[in-house]
Amino acid sequence: MDLAAIRLVDQDGSMQIAFVLYPGFTALDIVGPFQTLADLPGVEAVFVAEQAGPITDHTGALTIVATKALSEVPAPNIVVFPGGPGERVANAEHPIVVWLRAVHPTTTWTTSVCTGSLFLGHAGLLHGVDATCHWNSMDRLAATGAIPTGQRVVERGKIITAAGVSSGIDMGLTLVGKLFGDDIAKAVQLFIEYDPQPPYDAGSPEKAGPELVALVRDLSTQMAAAGKPV
Amino acid sequence: MDLAAIRLVDQDGSMQIAFVLYPGFTALDIVGPFQTLADLPGVEAVFVAEQAGPITDHTGALTIVATKALSEVPAPNIVVFPGGPGERVANAEHPIVVWLRAVHPTTTWTTSVCTGSLFLGHAGLLHGVDATCHWNSMDRLAATGAIPTGQRVVERGKIITAAGVSSGIDMGLTLVGKLFGDDIAKAVQLFIEYDPQPPYDAGSPEKAGPELVALVRDLSTQMAAAGKPV
Repeated sequence: MDLAAIRLVDQDGSMQIAFVLYPGFTALDIVGPFQTLADLPGVEAVFVAEQAGPITDHTGALTIVATKALSEVPAPNIVVFPGGPGERVANAEHPIVVWLRAVHPTTTWTTSVCTGSLFLGHAGLLHGVDATCHWNSMDRLAATGAIPTGQRVVERGKIITAAGVSSGIDMGLTLVGKLFGDDIAKAVQLFIEYDPQPPYDAGSPEKAGPELVALVRDLSTQMAAAGKPV
Repeated sequence: MDLAAIRLVDQDGSMQIAFVLYPGFTALDIVGPFQTLADLPGVEAVFVAEQAGPITDHTGALTIVATKALSEVPAPNIVVFPGGPGERVANAEHPIVVWLRAVHPTTTWTTSVCTGSLFLGHAGLLHGVDATCHWNSMDRLAATGAIPTGQRVVERGKIITAAGVSSGIDMGLTLVGKLFGDDIAKAVQLFIEYDPQPPYDAGSPEKAGPELVALVRDLSTQMAAAGKPV
């Protein structure tokens, strides 16, 4: 457990991690991984969007400032894509997807949480690749050529995809372990006191059962009707 | 499982939830509860700070926009305080604490995550009250007159305090259950796919052991020296 080892990862300078924002992202998707990574020495965490400036989440209530435009981040070491209803406007020619296709060849890790994996799919990175996303969008993931899995965090080559929303914390810790080693990852887990004790046990479709699955699908439809599509 | 029941909670209009920001907050502390609550019908989620405008977190990399000043939110139904190194400048006369003291008598729930409970302590709300915070700040919590507990989520009267950083998700789900009932809380858990599968089991001091505890304390000291005190 050698603190000096942390810095060895970063011999050439900073490890730039691009956290991608777009209107209608889901906040926890991106803040989960961010919180596991941002404090580590050598990490330059950057929130990026098509244009720099304030970007509002799918609820309309939370706005995070993108400090750089995509064009200002041409070679990030790691990219993290959140999911969220705003993803639905993406396609193969969406500026974020075009950017991803350009930067992916030189990333160390290309990652996503929730429906963020659909950006990877649109970029053509998931053809025949095991991947995951939010349980309610697996069909859309499959339509990109990916092979949807039931795992919470899926690593294939340098691509890591995670399941819905909160799974980004598990993905982030997994990534910290790869970058900095198990001890540092455990230290981050301890720092964020990630000792989950959910008051219910309904976090997956299997555990929640068909009635709750139908309820969430129905609420999603209601939210869509109210201009907050999920 | 009656969707109409959701709206019954909110017969008098919107349920305003004030998510409090200040320079040096920790993002996951506030985004965790936010994500469990913000989509629910009748909820008006508002990010507030001493002055409206962009507020940067303790890493310096993440900026959330406070859409209202404290003075514009004189009677929130619920308040949520995140922790973070920036809390260390607070005292009994800090504007946020003065505001909390004024709004607390009419809240339905007054809540905190991590060292956010120290704002409640400074406001004089925790004298002789069981409460919790991040494991590394229990002594400071005790100094406010609170009785620190080892629980992850502590409810006493209308005050709910949660442990470090990620515990806000557990606290948020607990609160959703109280406001909207168990079925809706389970639906939210399913929506955010909160089926935790941490790749390590080091989320509490007991589980992590003394070496990792010492490491996190040492890293916190290093961060403090670098201007990022934890």
